[in-house]
Amino acid sequence: MQISRLNTTALWSDATLYNGIAHFVEVPADTRVDFQAQLQQLLSQAAQTLVSIGSSPAQLLSATIYLTDRANVAALNQAWQQWLPAGCAPSRACIKAELLDSAMLVEIAFVAAYAA
Amino acid sequence: MQISRLNTTALWSDATLYNGIAHFVEVPADTRVDFQAQLQQLLSQAAQTLVSIGSSPAQLLSATIYLTDRANVAALNQAWQQWLPAGCAPSRACIKAELLDSAMLVEIAFVAAYAA
Amino acid sequence: MQISRLNTTALWSDATLYNGIAHFVEVPADTRVDFQAQLQQLLSQAAQTLVSIGSSPAQLLSATIYLTDRANVAALNQAWQQWLPAGCAPSRACIKAELLDSAMLVEIAFVAAYAA
Repeated sequence: MQISRLNTTALWSDATLYNGIAHFVEVPADTRVDFQAQLQQLLSQAAQTLVSIGSSPAQLLSATIYLTDRANVAALNQAWQQWLPAGCAPSRACIKAELLDSAMLVEIAFVAAYAA
Repeated sequence: MQISRLNTTALWSDATLYNGIAHFVEVPADTRVDFQAQLQQLLSQAAQTLVSIGSSPAQLLSATIYLTDRANVAALNQAWQQWLPAGCAPSRACIKAELLDSAMLVEIAFVAAYAA
Repeated sequence: MQISRLNTTALWSDATLYNGIAHFVEVPADTRVDFQAQLQQLLSQAAQTLVSIGSSPAQLLSATIYLTDRANVAALNQAWQQWLPAGCAPSRACIKAELLDSAMLVEIAFVAAYAA
């Protein structure tokens, strides 16, 4: 079985696919905006990645959400449940962490099924 | 192949199952107690989740343990090895992190096989 | 299907293998040295683990990199791209986190395919 990759650079791939399971990580492309706008960017990018790999938000298995500020949890939860199709929420870990770019307020690592 | 989910809410599922691999995250239900009591709750919940998905502590593949305080590592390790069946320890990452509830002292993200 | 494990102790296994997917975590064995030396140790250990499980750096699916200091990102990226075979970079999350040993400056959790 072959590994498939999406947009591979010297440092990372936007997604890897193997044996029915995809791994991908999203960070907001533009970090000059506030939390809600960063999160909307991230979720839009995630939706696009899922389309690119033949998956969808209904096929997420796991999300590891890194937030820099507890004050953003309510906004996270509201956007998160609006973004997810009903009845399809993945396993979810939420951690308060600083990220590598000090202006970045959220990062999410996803695992998804890409054929189901 | 279908994704199976355990106790799905608008925000998360208690577990997701796909292609032989389950993802689930446990946090202590009652965070008013000390670290050892929080950890015992968490491990009991994990055991129950594993039963619910047709797996067991002998079939864990990976654990990512988030601790808020290095002072709790010894207590973690003691409870962890008592909880695990001999010869079955998973891959394990341990990170010092703040969690989203400031009273929560431990969170663990698990990957398990559910048929072996 | 059986779970295979590498170097299982009471607390963790150096790797677990199931259904084509391996989980393993690497930390530097000697933390008395600087970041670049710790990272070189870690990457050498990861290469050795990959050989031990019948995999290779070309078959990584996901890396979750925990760094204690943003000042080390440039050194991380340089060593990381030198270590990875061209065109094979995994999905990658990078988090700033304290680790359980205060002298430890980097920890990486990997997911890899072991037959491809």
